[in-house]
Amino acid sequence: MLSESRIQDLNQPLLEEHQLQFNFLTDLLARRQVDAGQVVQQLIDFQVAIPSWALGTGGTRFGRFPLGGEPRNLEEKINDVGLLHQLNGSSNSISLHIPWDIPQDIAGLQQQLSEQKLVIDSVNSNTFQDQKDQHYSYKFGSLSNTEAGARQQAIQHNIDCIRHGQALNAKTLTVWLADGSNFPGQQHLRRAYLRTQESLAAIYEAMPSDWNMLIEYKPYEPNFYSTVIPDWGTSYSLCQSLGKNANVLVDLGHHLPNTNIEQIVGRLQQFGRLGGFHFNGSMYGDDDLTTGSTKPFQLFLIFNELVDAARDQTVTNPTVAYMIDASHNVKDPLEDLLQSVENILSAYAKALLVDRTALYEAQEKNDVVRAEEIMRDAFLLDVRPLVAEAYRRAGGALRPVAAYRAAGIREQLIQQRGKLSLSTGL
Amino acid sequence: MLSESRIQDLNQPLLEEHQLQFNFLTDLLARRQVDAGQVVQQLIDFQVAIPSWALGTGGTRFGRFPLGGEPRNLEEKINDVGLLHQLNGSSNSISLHIPWDIPQDIAGLQQQLSEQKLVIDSVNSNTFQDQKDQHYSYKFGSLSNTEAGARQQAIQHNIDCIRHGQALNAKTLTVWLADGSNFPGQQHLRRAYLRTQESLAAIYEAMPSDWNMLIEYKPYEPNFYSTVIPDWGTSYSLCQSLGKNANVLVDLGHHLPNTNIEQIVGRLQQFGRLGGFHFNGSMYGDDDLTTGSTKPFQLFLIFNELVDAARDQTVTNPTVAYMIDASHNVKDPLEDLLQSVENILSAYAKALLVDRTALYEAQEKNDVVRAEEIMRDAFLLDVRPLVAEAYRRAGGALRPVAAYRAAGIREQLIQQRGKLSLSTGL
Amino acid sequence: MLSESRIQDLNQPLLEEHQLQFNFLTDLLARRQVDAGQVVQQLIDFQVAIPSWALGTGGTRFGRFPLGGEPRNLEEKINDVGLLHQLNGSSNSISLHIPWDIPQDIAGLQQQLSEQKLVIDSVNSNTFQDQKDQHYSYKFGSLSNTEAGARQQAIQHNIDCIRHGQALNAKTLTVWLADGSNFPGQQHLRRAYLRTQESLAAIYEAMPSDWNMLIEYKPYEPNFYSTVIPDWGTSYSLCQSLGKNANVLVDLGHHLPNTNIEQIVGRLQQFGRLGGFHFNGSMYGDDDLTTGSTKPFQLFLIFNELVDAARDQTVTNPTVAYMIDASHNVKDPLEDLLQSVENILSAYAKALLVDRTALYEAQEKNDVVRAEEIMRDAFLLDVRPLVAEAYRRAGGALRPVAAYRAAGIREQLIQQRGKLSLSTGL
Amino acid sequence: MLSESRIQDLNQPLLEEHQLQFNFLTDLLARRQVDAGQVVQQLIDFQVAIPSWALGTGGTRFGRFPLGGEPRNLEEKINDVGLLHQLNGSSNSISLHIPWDIPQDIAGLQQQLSEQKLVIDSVNSNTFQDQKDQHYSYKFGSLSNTEAGARQQAIQHNIDCIRHGQALNAKTLTVWLADGSNFPGQQHLRRAYLRTQESLAAIYEAMPSDWNMLIEYKPYEPNFYSTVIPDWGTSYSLCQSLGKNANVLVDLGHHLPNTNIEQIVGRLQQFGRLGGFHFNGSMYGDDDLTTGSTKPFQLFLIFNELVDAARDQTVTNPTVAYMIDASHNVKDPLEDLLQSVENILSAYAKALLVDRTALYEAQEKNDVVRAEEIMRDAFLLDVRPLVAEAYRRAGGALRPVAAYRAAGIREQLIQQRGKLSLSTGL
Repeated sequence: MLSESRIQDLNQPLLEEHQLQFNFLTDLLARRQVDAGQVVQQLIDFQVAIPSWALGTGGTRFGRFPLGGEPRNLEEKINDVGLLHQLNGSSNSISLHIPWDIPQDIAGLQQQLSEQKLVIDSVNSNTFQDQKDQHYSYKFGSLSNTEAGARQQAIQHNIDCIRHGQALNAKTLTVWLADGSNFPGQQHLRRAYLRTQESLAAIYEAMPSDWNMLIEYKPYEPNFYSTVIPDWGTSYSLCQSLGKNANVLVDLGHHLPNTNIEQIVGRLQQFGRLGGFHFNGSMYGDDDLTTGSTKPFQLFLIFNELVDAARDQTVTNPTVAYMIDASHNVKDPLEDLLQSVENILSAYAKALLVDRTALYEAQEKNDVVRAEEIMRDAFLLDVRPLVAEAYRRAGGALRPVAAYRAAGIREQLIQQRGKLSLSTGL
Repeated sequence: MLSESRIQDLNQPLLEEHQLQFNFLTDLLARRQVDAGQVVQQLIDFQVAIPSWALGTGGTRFGRFPLGGEPRNLEEKINDVGLLHQLNGSSNSISLHIPWDIPQDIAGLQQQLSEQKLVIDSVNSNTFQDQKDQHYSYKFGSLSNTEAGARQQAIQHNIDCIRHGQALNAKTLTVWLADGSNFPGQQHLRRAYLRTQESLAAIYEAMPSDWNMLIEYKPYEPNFYSTVIPDWGTSYSLCQSLGKNANVLVDLGHHLPNTNIEQIVGRLQQFGRLGGFHFNGSMYGDDDLTTGSTKPFQLFLIFNELVDAARDQTVTNPTVAYMIDASHNVKDPLEDLLQSVENILSAYAKALLVDRTALYEAQEKNDVVRAEEIMRDAFLLDVRPLVAEAYRRAGGALRPVAAYRAAGIREQLIQQRGKLSLSTGL
Repeated sequence: MLSESRIQDLNQPLLEEHQLQFNFLTDLLARRQVDAGQVVQQLIDFQVAIPSWALGTGGTRFGRFPLGGEPRNLEEKINDVGLLHQLNGSSNSISLHIPWDIPQDIAGLQQQLSEQKLVIDSVNSNTFQDQKDQHYSYKFGSLSNTEAGARQQAIQHNIDCIRHGQALNAKTLTVWLADGSNFPGQQHLRRAYLRTQESLAAIYEAMPSDWNMLIEYKPYEPNFYSTVIPDWGTSYSLCQSLGKNANVLVDLGHHLPNTNIEQIVGRLQQFGRLGGFHFNGSMYGDDDLTTGSTKPFQLFLIFNELVDAARDQTVTNPTVAYMIDASHNVKDPLEDLLQSVENILSAYAKALLVDRTALYEAQEKNDVVRAEEIMRDAFLLDVRPLVAEAYRRAGGALRPVAAYRAAGIREQLIQQRGKLSLSTGL
Repeated sequence: MLSESRIQDLNQPLLEEHQLQFNFLTDLLARRQVDAGQVVQQLIDFQVAIPSWALGTGGTRFGRFPLGGEPRNLEEKINDVGLLHQLNGSSNSISLHIPWDIPQDIAGLQQQLSEQKLVIDSVNSNTFQDQKDQHYSYKFGSLSNTEAGARQQAIQHNIDCIRHGQALNAKTLTVWLADGSNFPGQQHLRRAYLRTQESLAAIYEAMPSDWNMLIEYKPYEPNFYSTVIPDWGTSYSLCQSLGKNANVLVDLGHHLPNTNIEQIVGRLQQFGRLGGFHFNGSMYGDDDLTTGSTKPFQLFLIFNELVDAARDQTVTNPTVAYMIDASHNVKDPLEDLLQSVENILSAYAKALLVDRTALYEAQEKNDVVRAEEIMRDAFLLDVRPLVAEAYRRAGGALRPVAAYRAAGIREQLIQQRGKLSLSTGL
């Protein structure tokens, strides 16, 4: 949809200003013994997966306002992610949502992925909705259901997900469980946990040894009294019981008010159990806004924990899977995803710039003001020139959202797919 | 669907135990100089409106699991409310939701209402979803929209609602505005307020002088950065600017964590601006659970404010409209509504039993323990015999949910309306 | 201070009404195949420890308003608890707070305890304040301090606490750690955890094998960015690393807004790691109000988990230590403690009355309404006659607060100890 | 304590780097048609008041760890503020706390203030603690107390505060009321409001016509069930009843979780009722941390509302009083205050840089992404060179905290005032 040269053309008028700012920042960092080029390289290497369900307009229980041109099948979804990756060079993978993204033409899909320089990142099972031909309902739970048949059906669905993922070389199964209860007494809390544990063990058992299972937690919604896996502690206990290939997935919106999420991230890394991230933004609950849009400082602090652990030899955490999981109710989904990736890269860049030697020294001496100033010094720097340079070096656009608009992509998508096209999946 | 004699038959086996308990409680209260009969009469007089949208299975953005037999039109909705009213004698009114409940056969509806001893309580406008033939979209707001045309369309819809309500002798328009923004900067906060105020004034202007406008507030959802009317203070300021027939509606789920809702109720009564209630239950947000199911003590404290103000000559609050506004995701909606009414009546009964003379005396003397014990003494009493007696005297069932089940009503509804019938409205 | 006969005299005028209500409830329960006498016996057997620091008037950082007659030393504290135990027969133990309650005259104390039928329940270390002669400050933490000397001092203090407890036959050390940070960057989150773990291991090592260590968690206050042990998951991970005699202590006020505490209680029992409770009441944070005063339904749901687990053979949780941990800012501390115990016993009684066989059946069938009604049926019963009967059979007062007032105890305490006596400890 | 030339000396080695960065930013802004010099001038003109109680080490109910050298009387407090003002040129005023800061030597104080280029900003009454010689206790409230004598005493105290303020040319009385209740039933909510309203009216009556009364709100602490003035709506209603010289004070820490504070600020300006600010930082409650330390984006959004309203001719809000109200538990109070002012100036600078013309256009067109990007563009700019330049031009230090440390001020203060000096006031 976009040729490389078209992107270069769009960059052209911005280049001079960019170069000016990037050079100035490079010099400024050099005076602090920081190599801007190295930071840019780390940004280039950083990749975030795009979930297939985030390519269409999202909504709430109160309504949905689609904008048109949404991808109608897996091939179109891959195209959209490929487009994002062209623009920012940082979205090289896609998370599937089964049953909507069951791959049919495997060879064709593999060729398409290869052409667009994409990989399949993970497969997400869905046992929180009933599909048309489904025998047992998930109204009262899936892996924790009191009926053995319903549990078995949900287990099988997860195993099917693995199979679909294998066809496209994915290596990760992400499990989010909506199971829980709305009223005190509805569910026997301990038994629901035990049934879930047993179901997860059956899936884990069936999982190839080079696969990973990521277990999400969420305190509420769609259940409003209890959920079976409400907090990191519960996820962690389940992972401990399953084995080393089961790890915790942190979704930024899945926490109670005022939770210190960066500390949870730190704890899980310390325990070697941080498996992945779902990035989004939250002010009140699982708001699923653009990540970094409401609490940019928090996003920086989370990346600070990630960078800090990555540099610590004593931390033996597995590779962390980074995914976006947002809902785009009032923005063009593709613009929202470009913004999300930019916010993530900015936070990462700032975390890379923290002067850790000085920080550790200040921490050891309990020099609170100094330690804080070191952190803020990194946060307050305007790192946009570094991020733009990373885009540019990867062949992308200096300003992805502006390029997307200038290239008239949404208009083309609407023309191709129609004003009323609806993306499948949540 | 239920004959009076059928209800009597269902009561028969429970009567002896009921009489035993009611008599014991009557004597116990008499020893405290409280007339149980008077309390029962106040319970009989108390009526709660049932919203038309609560008669079908609710859901969340993650899914919906209907149970069948849902009412397919206004006539069937009225039938369902009539059934509830037969069972508990406390649900004599129904709140309409436009555009789903636009009355067609006015004369027929009036006759049906009269036969089932029901009235239309209020009309609820809906400008948070787009209807098929709608010219302007509400994606970016309705009464606060930046486009004059969209605002005018929303104003006209509200005026139409009044017209539909007049046809069935309603006197109340309830306005809940989903308008707001998801991101900082999206909406100019002051201008959005001013546009809303202007739109509300146009509706108020068009409203007959014997009508009331109820203005709801809600801090978030479906918008997750700001809403135009987030809190009681904003509702109150709008009502002040509109006139005396505009008053604040308190929905129990529309508050930030840890809000002292009973105090807001007290304040609004003091200012003469408490217009109505939407009862539901909440643990995390606008969970829309059965009212009283999660925080029964809070419901009691709210009724305590209502009863206290009702007995205070200096309080000149208008008549308060009581409505249920819950979503029934995992329960049979009609059972949920019967439970809701029972919880409301229980809370009311307990509030009626507070020894106010002793309480005021303890409050004046700052005898904290004594004041608290007086409140708890009322709360801890088991008032179910009083509520059951109120049902019985009104011709209803001693145990409405049990009677509903014993009479096999859901099975009949499914047979009549089908397993896949879907209730219209949210 | 109170003779047994004085208590009997105070009970006399209330006996007839009590008997009437108790008999009625006994009959009512008998018709449901429940033996009221057995429930009463279980209430008699239930004992809650009183913390030494709760016997004086509490306060906030904004001020403190003492009421006089506060205990000035350990002997007077024991006397106050003995008095409570006389009144309600349910407070047979006392939690010490070191350094304020260091026992001096061991033989004398043991005799006093024996005469008042009391035991020492647990010893609470304090490393969140600096004592006068202390070498290292805890301003920047104790067990997690960056300075080895400060950590060693805090470790030694805990070991000293064990020694003091041994002198009086206590078997439990309770550790609440205020350690944490106020600003991002102040503390290296992983290193702070590791230092804490190491310090706790040193204490655990020094602990006699028949002792238990209880580890509290708390998300914030007195530190407002992070605490080293913010949540049950962190406490749990520490207990796992220490050994089977280290278990988690749940303080009801130490949770983020909207936390489902009863589920945490259930989880910890399932993992065999629930060590103890600190009962208090909370509406906004660690408010330290009378337990059960703000959320009586929650307290019932917590006891429901405790009773349910106690009856489940597959649950192998250690004996749970029940303690009150409240602050009495506007009430007479002794009255507050009597109320607290009563609220606890009421919640326990209701939990004992849940029809578990019917509940499990409803849960298995996902009959949500039925399951909820079974729970509510127990909660709504007025169990005060059972609690009063338990008091009576244990030789206590039918209405402990009223008896305390009628006996003029506070006035006597003020006369003995002075209007300005200040209780030591927090 | 610091000579002007000493500050210049400290600036010397930093000047070249500063100039480089400032010039670059000036050019960058010029390319966007923004005059950096004008922004710097607006920063110079912006002044924040320092509260006398923030000059000593703060604490929590769990303890306090003073660092020494704290000011022992009003003269020393003025000296400390003068020192801050020398360093940053932005703290030209001081808020008094009565009874601790009752001025004695009026002429001497006036001369001292004049020499240090300071003014007295406002007077803060204190009716939440009992002073030694006080007749009535505030244990159960002050302006809302049930006892007329206690109310009269609190009214008189406020009138005294005005008198003390007049002696030093202050024009503002700030009222924060701790009044409220800890338990349901303790306080009659409506009557408590009415008593408070009456008491405030008496103070308002006694206030000179060129004075302003600022009324704070706070949802909880030190009372944990209700407070008499819990939210902006209540403050606002009181101000409406008092008159145009009574306005609402917003303290950033006095809100329930997840409150959109910037919207409240916008509303109050719209109603012409925003009287002042208490700046601090909050993650969980009234944490009283350095303002901007936890939620820098929120602080920017608040200033965005302030700047937006200031440029809107239709907004007729009175002059807003800016004050810091933080507690410095683990930092040197003076360093904390320097940081606070810097964070405030940074947020203000960013708000000044928002391209409002473009923003309004994007808002009108509901171009959500564009509107957000305009806001973020301002927020992400590194404005520290502008703030440093404002310091420099006002004769202050380029880096106030570093200068404060380099000049060894705390060491001097400890030498002068002693290691154990304790600041008076909270």
